[in-house]
Amino acid sequence: MEQRVSLITLGVTDLDRSKAFYESLGWRGQEVARTVFFQAGGLGLVLWGREELARDCGLDDGSGSGFAGIALAHNLRSREEVDALLETARKAGATVTKPAAPTFYGGYAGCFADPDGHLWEIAHNPGFPLSEDGSLTLPDLTSP
Amino acid sequence: MEQRVSLITLGVTDLDRSKAFYESLGWRGQEVARTVFFQAGGLGLVLWGREELARDCGLDDGSGSGFAGIALAHNLRSREEVDALLETARKAGATVTKPAAPTFYGGYAGCFADPDGHLWEIAHNPGFPLSEDGSLTLPDLTSP
Repeated sequence: MEQRVSLITLGVTDLDRSKAFYESLGWRGQEVARTVFFQAGGLGLVLWGREELARDCGLDDGSGSGFAGIALAHNLRSREEVDALLETARKAGATVTKPAAPTFYGGYAGCFADPDGHLWEIAHNPGFPLSEDGSLTLPDLTSP
Repeated sequence: MEQRVSLITLGVTDLDRSKAFYESLGWRGQEVARTVFFQAGGLGLVLWGREELARDCGLDDGSGSGFAGIALAHNLRSREEVDALLETARKAGATVTKPAAPTFYGGYAGCFADPDGHLWEIAHNPGFPLSEDGSLTLPDLTSP
């Protein structure tokens, strides 16, 4: 596993409020399908509905689920790498909260929780190309 | 506020266990004062005691405090920038959970929670220089 983070997704209860908040701080992003993507250095900071994020990680948002409302993502260049890393994490003691499967955006992803429940989505997303050094530059998501 | 993240700090209940977990995934970092720093692209991924992290953010780790066990940091180049950004965030609707103050590591930092409680530490840390593009490269922390 390369030492890098591709996305930080903040689960939010009111997307418009959160988007306005970060815009008040000077951030500018792209909103697509009720998701806001901000380029933040070599990664993407994402605002997404908290319930959707929990479900996407294989958890629910109820109390006791341990869902902290935030997830890190580590993107890879192939489905095979996703499978291999999830297996490595499982062997290292992670809990696989969502086995790898095709995603609605045409990618392939699964999730694990580290020993304290911190969530990592391990993903191959052909729409978000990685540079050679592993950094992620968001494409133009708003063009048809 | 520039669109970048300087540190992601994961609060952990057993530092040795968490360090071993990330090392099993292939990560290599530096441990200083019961804190583990991993270089992750242009930012640092940090493992630190969950209670210490909560306290550092002006919260406690008890149930009901809303502490999610993770904090993002945005480092700046001066104390004045820290004060200005915390004030901007407050005006934008953030809750300042810890007013800016000198830190034990010789820096200056304060924390705010975004509308969903996601924590941001806003810090000036002279020991962690920022490059021109805002990325952070951890120095050698283990030398005396």
